[in-house]
Amino acid sequence: MSDDGTEALDALRERVRASEFQRWAGLELVSLSEGRTEFALRTVPEHRNLEGGLHGGVLSILADTATGIAMHSAIGPDRTHVTLQLDLHFIGRPSSDRILGAGRVLRSGRRIGFAEAELTDEEGTLVATARATFLLMDRRGG
Amino acid sequence: MSDDGTEALDALRERVRASEFQRWAGLELVSLSEGRTEFALRTVPEHRNLEGGLHGGVLSILADTATGIAMHSAIGPDRTHVTLQLDLHFIGRPSSDRILGAGRVLRSGRRIGFAEAELTDEEGTLVATARATFLLMDRRGG
Amino acid sequence: MSDDGTEALDALRERVRASEFQRWAGLELVSLSEGRTEFALRTVPEHRNLEGGLHGGVLSILADTATGIAMHSAIGPDRTHVTLQLDLHFIGRPSSDRILGAGRVLRSGRRIGFAEAELTDEEGTLVATARATFLLMDRRGG
Amino acid sequence: MSDDGTEALDALRERVRASEFQRWAGLELVSLSEGRTEFALRTVPEHRNLEGGLHGGVLSILADTATGIAMHSAIGPDRTHVTLQLDLHFIGRPSSDRILGAGRVLRSGRRIGFAEAELTDEEGTLVATARATFLLMDRRGG
Repeated sequence: MSDDGTEALDALRERVRASEFQRWAGLELVSLSEGRTEFALRTVPEHRNLEGGLHGGVLSILADTATGIAMHSAIGPDRTHVTLQLDLHFIGRPSSDRILGAGRVLRSGRRIGFAEAELTDEEGTLVATARATFLLMDRRGG
Repeated sequence: MSDDGTEALDALRERVRASEFQRWAGLELVSLSEGRTEFALRTVPEHRNLEGGLHGGVLSILADTATGIAMHSAIGPDRTHVTLQLDLHFIGRPSSDRILGAGRVLRSGRRIGFAEAELTDEEGTLVATARATFLLMDRRGG
Repeated sequence: MSDDGTEALDALRERVRASEFQRWAGLELVSLSEGRTEFALRTVPEHRNLEGGLHGGVLSILADTATGIAMHSAIGPDRTHVTLQLDLHFIGRPSSDRILGAGRVLRSGRRIGFAEAELTDEEGTLVATARATFLLMDRRGG
Repeated sequence: MSDDGTEALDALRERVRASEFQRWAGLELVSLSEGRTEFALRTVPEHRNLEGGLHGGVLSILADTATGIAMHSAIGPDRTHVTLQLDLHFIGRPSSDRILGAGRVLRSGRRIGFAEAELTDEEGTLVATARATFLLMDRRGG
């Protein structure tokens, strides 16, 4: 990767870590490279549903973030993406409070991108899988 | 609906309104009947993504809640549901900070249920659609 | 609708009815207007899976066709669409050999479109629901 | 795997290869083991849509078959499965007439199973991805 690419990833890392959304959601950026990222979600009592299980919407936040930031890292700072569609399968019940979400780009084209995420607990059990479709665009004035 | 059904819906309404998750997420229960519900999401600055748009994961929370509580209201208090799968399409950009999520059951069988949700802004613009698949079970000891 | 629009729909109807794919799949165009269409699938013994049920892939063909042609009818002859994503929920078991698939456009934007389909049997039972996401483009040289 | 398991896989292979659906759809079973399978689709002119591309519904057939037979091989002959939900992402345009569909089970539980499929052309280009959710049941009288 060029110096420009390295700088762009550094800048993205900083923006993610400074994000109020990340703090609100209990997310932490673990790693980021071109087209790949990993986030950790620290679940809190407020994330529980009426049955005491982890709310599917909270796992959706982790999946949406892992796929979206993976896509963001692949297209570079002069382009932007809009999520068109997201789907999740809730495969297994997590046995830890910390959930890892690994996102990776499946394809980054001129106008369209696809990414996926695998959510696992700390014992490596598959908790959920997700895929997302993105519209990719040049930034206005970019 | 029988008196039992009415009581069960009243009890569900109370549980939802007392939920810490609902408060954390910025959700408010607007209406609930057998197989149908409506929630409102009051977005806050923490719900914004890096581009300033409403985070897809926040819309997922609204969709997951609207489909899940609709399903819950249809199966009665002696049964419980587990979400197997959730998918969302992000159709339009909302023009209000308050988003409505209307959930309804498509089918409630013995073992499997399906529900869907439509998310709209206050001007009635379709923001997102969602569908979910549920495993339905008797409560243990229920 | 303008005369041009009427002509375009007439031309699309003819192209669909002349399609070898439609014949192969057992599909029949029932109705078509701007953004809406209805197809009928006449199931044959070859459409059955190992368990004797109607193959999910055959229902997918009906869903893909109903959403795709609805989208096609909405964008006009100078533009084209590529399906990015399709999802189906298999809600109920059909009790007739003829399945109807009603497609309608949810949104037709400049670059992106969304459509959905409802599949029902002849008694009106909901057999499956589907949604699709499309990339919309000008035809080259069009 | 026990002798019973080997026999069950042999029996499944034979049933798949004798299937009229497989012949109609242009499918060929390439390999089958417990929880994994590979099919090849030989596309024919009737599989083309109005734009000359491979019909999404035909890829859905391949995906539905690859996920369904992978699931079937994992649960054994005394149990059966019903597909609840299937979703596909159309990632890339194939450059060969033969498409491979590799299916594998993500989880096979007591009541619910999940499987996924990757569709590639003969040059190894990713054409589509799919995931499916299944209800698992004992066979009646089984």
